Amino acid sequence: MAGVSVIQMFGRRVSWRGGCEWHRHSRNGQRRMAVSGQSPYCSAVESPAVQHAGRSRRKILTLQSMNPQVRAVEYAVRGPIVLKAGEIEKELQNGVKKPFDEVIKANIGDAHAMGQQPITFLRQVVALCTYPDLLDNPSLPNDAKRRARRILESCGGQSLGSYSASQGVNCIREDVAKFIEKRDGGVPAHPDNIYLTTGASDGISSILKILVSGEGQSRTGVMIPIPQYPLYSAALSELDAIQVNYYLDEENCWALDVRELQRAYYSAREYCNPKVLCIINPGNPTGQVQSKHCIEEVIHFALEEGLFLLADEVYQDNIYSKSCQFHSFKKVLYEMGPEYFNNVELASFHSTSKGYMGECGYRGGYMEVVNLHPDITAQLVKLLSVRLCPPVSGQAAMDVVVNPPHPGEESYEQFIKEKEAILSNLAEKAKLTEELFNQVPGIKCNPLQGAMYAFPRIFIPDKAIEKSKEHQMAPDMYYCMRLLEETGICVVPGSGFGQKEGTHHFRMTILPPVEKLKILLQKVKDFHMRFLEDYA
Amino acid sequence: MAGVSVIQMFGRRVSWRGGCEWHRHSRNGQRRMAVSGQSPYCSAVESPAVQHAGRSRRKILTLQSMNPQVRAVEYAVRGPIVLKAGEIEKELQNGVKKPFDEVIKANIGDAHAMGQQPITFLRQVVALCTYPDLLDNPSLPNDAKRRARRILESCGGQSLGSYSASQGVNCIREDVAKFIEKRDGGVPAHPDNIYLTTGASDGISSILKILVSGEGQSRTGVMIPIPQYPLYSAALSELDAIQVNYYLDEENCWALDVRELQRAYYSAREYCNPKVLCIINPGNPTGQVQSKHCIEEVIHFALEEGLFLLADEVYQDNIYSKSCQFHSFKKVLYEMGPEYFNNVELASFHSTSKGYMGECGYRGGYMEVVNLHPDITAQLVKLLSVRLCPPVSGQAAMDVVVNPPHPGEESYEQFIKEKEAILSNLAEKAKLTEELFNQVPGIKCNPLQGAMYAFPRIFIPDKAIEKSKEHQMAPDMYYCMRLLEETGICVVPGSGFGQKEGTHHFRMTILPPVEKLKILLQKVKDFHMRFLEDYA
Repeated sequence: MAGVSVIQMFGRRVSWRGGCEWHRHSRNGQRRMAVSGQSPYCSAVESPAVQHAGRSRRKILTLQSMNPQVRAVEYAVRGPIVLKAGEIEKELQNGVKKPFDEVIKANIGDAHAMGQQPITFLRQVVALCTYPDLLDNPSLPNDAKRRARRILESCGGQSLGSYSASQGVNCIREDVAKFIEKRDGGVPAHPDNIYLTTGASDGISSILKILVSGEGQSRTGVMIPIPQYPLYSAALSELDAIQVNYYLDEENCWALDVRELQRAYYSAREYCNPKVLCIINPGNPTGQVQSKHCIEEVIHFALEEGLFLLADEVYQDNIYSKSCQFHSFKKVLYEMGPEYFNNVELASFHSTSKGYMGECGYRGGYMEVVNLHPDITAQLVKLLSVRLCPPVSGQAAMDVVVNPPHPGEESYEQFIKEKEAILSNLAEKAKLTEELFNQVPGIKCNPLQGAMYAFPRIFIPDKAIEKSKEHQMAPDMYYCMRLLEETGICVVPGSGFGQKEGTHHFRMTILPPVEKLKILLQKVKDFHMRFLEDYA
Repeated sequence: MAGVSVIQMFGRRVSWRGGCEWHRHSRNGQRRMAVSGQSPYCSAVESPAVQHAGRSRRKILTLQSMNPQVRAVEYAVRGPIVLKAGEIEKELQNGVKKPFDEVIKANIGDAHAMGQQPITFLRQVVALCTYPDLLDNPSLPNDAKRRARRILESCGGQSLGSYSASQGVNCIREDVAKFIEKRDGGVPAHPDNIYLTTGASDGISSILKILVSGEGQSRTGVMIPIPQYPLYSAALSELDAIQVNYYLDEENCWALDVRELQRAYYSAREYCNPKVLCIINPGNPTGQVQSKHCIEEVIHFALEEGLFLLADEVYQDNIYSKSCQFHSFKKVLYEMGPEYFNNVELASFHSTSKGYMGECGYRGGYMEVVNLHPDITAQLVKLLSVRLCPPVSGQAAMDVVVNPPHPGEESYEQFIKEKEAILSNLAEKAKLTEELFNQVPGIKCNPLQGAMYAFPRIFIPDKAIEKSKEHQMAPDMYYCMRLLEETGICVVPGSGFGQKEGTHHFRMTILPPVEKLKILLQKVKDFHMRFLEDYA
């Protein structure tokens, strides 16, 4: 029975453990958090001898013997709270009574899972590429067939089943370059600088992998916003790079202040070699949209201090505030003149997963590089070639995103109607969420200018903070666990993204349909009022 | 013009550089090859100051400043010879006269690119999942529709565009488990132990990432066959793990001899902690199929020495010799009794890319784990969750591979016909290739028992070896470059896979259509005879 008890212990640990990790994280400030020996896993459990027929043997691969950098990785968006949500869903299926009928997963930006319908044209093109017999089928539109034929002609053996070049299918990279040129008002883009990727995460991880080097005080430091999207902290942990935090200004709609960049940079130079600066615009989880002036300041700073820029622009289509506009780093860089455009090294990222498409499952994306040293281009292609190529159907989906129906084509009107319905619906939900949260005492929510999340600040009473310590959880993890257990709503604690010491938040997507979102927000409000009362 | 000259230098280096790298590799024997400072890149080029309008600035990301572990990565299957092939293709397109009309890329196992047609049923199911409006289309068969409905019901929002669980879509993991049980004559398989992956490469890299730890003499050693598929050496280089080579026995049809495993293991213990043993069965590039007895010996050795087993079984459907049969490591492990089945830690891999499907572009695959510690299960899920999920359309393709039409279903006959035509055609080409190579003086080719490659040994005269040294290339790289330049045939030098000191080989796929393959083999023969004459 030894095996079973280990699994049970483990089950419990999953629930409680995240708390300690994130708690430590939020106290740690400047440097990367988890250090191998400190893991609550390690102190809690000895590598169990396996008891079975025959001799008992120790496992080869255990928490003690595994890669400590992987052990240190945390990824809150699919972390302990989501595992708990899965457990509760199973209980509901097995007839366990709860104060709710379903778990609502507002933890992840997964539009289709929340009922958003795919863009018809995109799916038609990909289906035609998948099963080219459909090219003779009169029920599918000719513009979709033209797109599909063009993609297939650029594939080996005219099949999505062939490997593409590691950098991606040629004609799709051409389309991406044209899309960027158009988006950026004519700033030149070249297919050679486009790399199709397995979602944006893959591009970000790949370029970070190349960038990280050095030992001790020379170890590469990577500046990331706090709050951040935890792909960054996870990738840096895997790579054993130094995470250098710069804080976004919550009092000022989560704006990026270049003085804070300077503070973070100069203090980091005392213990590492900061050489990469990551920007997420529009912000995730914070939803701010950067002004052109702010981007100029960031670029100037990067040039002055010799920082390689990573611009995560996957939410570029998700702008809701009338006063805001998306400016790509590439375009601003160009407009700042040759001193900047010929020198600053930049990689920017886009994806099929967000925007109005929401095609997360296709794992499509691209990276554009600017001013990459030609030697590094070769190194990047070599690194990517080990994984052979990004999924070709995801590349085809990316092609439709960058080359949608044009005015005059037969699918144009339906495409525009679908796209605008989704985006205006998201804008409505962004406004609704902000307004409703700000009506709750003890919750304060900045405007959702863009992206697809609210990241409200929540007041947690001292007594609740004490209670959370008893459970060895970060206070906002405790809050979110109680929210989940009492309402079935799954959101991610702010500590999973990082936040200023002493502040607490959670991230919630605005993707549920409007009527459901209203109920959800009302439930959060009721829960919050009860929580305040319970711990008054 | 500084920029241009750098690019030109670079262009030349691409062609010649691989040679030095592979040359060093083949001389290095036991330990991993490339060491940062030794790269011919580093000595050849200084990080160029960028000359532009305004100040000139040094690049941040250069060969000197980049991650040295990534710099050390080599991947021959898409390496310098393939870049050269691309250059030649462009020259042909631009009207440059060559002694041939087209480049034949026999470097990579990319079946559809060589004209193999997709399995109809597989594409129908994936197209139906992609564009569910087709479920109403009478031209598609009902069994394909049933499969598609079942997959969609297991997807969030019934859409391939939703993220799946990081471990993969539930019902597909169930189908994989059933497939394995059936394949292995009833040996139990559980969906919880199945992880869907982005091709097999992704699964192999992920589990290696978790396995590698320690410093200095305690650094993890990973035993791999030589010749190997270079994903392994590349992944180990990225992870800075110690590559421990064991040599397959060319004189004995590339068999694995357990005494050689012992030799490699005990000598590796002097400088690292060998704890992982990788097996490729059927072999890539070597094409041998392991006997059950041999697998038993390997498993016994792994238990005795405490080694974690990785079994790369992506060619399990590609068995051509009548005297050979595929035995999965999992099944043999089970049949060896509880002492083994309850203790040996094993991960095995399969893929949509090979077999009779050849669906490389979908990046579908799975990993099955046996005896993984429950703590490690959680760590693995966490690590995979950072990349969110494997491409869901690739998962759907995997589902068809493990759950093809059953007897009595309307698509069954066509499916069987397509599958058997492809496999018998491959068997014919395997035999043809072996026979024709063995008719050429100075070429010796083992039987192609399985997989999809020939890996013939080639005699290279001393004068040619001297010539290759002048070009700073490994002798077989020089041979393959000349073959490419004179015939347009692109194959990969044996030095890219590893080989015994003083021996030379190349890897060639048997995927071109029979008539084209015959011409290709005749061209290789003619080239080889000329080559022997030229350097007599």
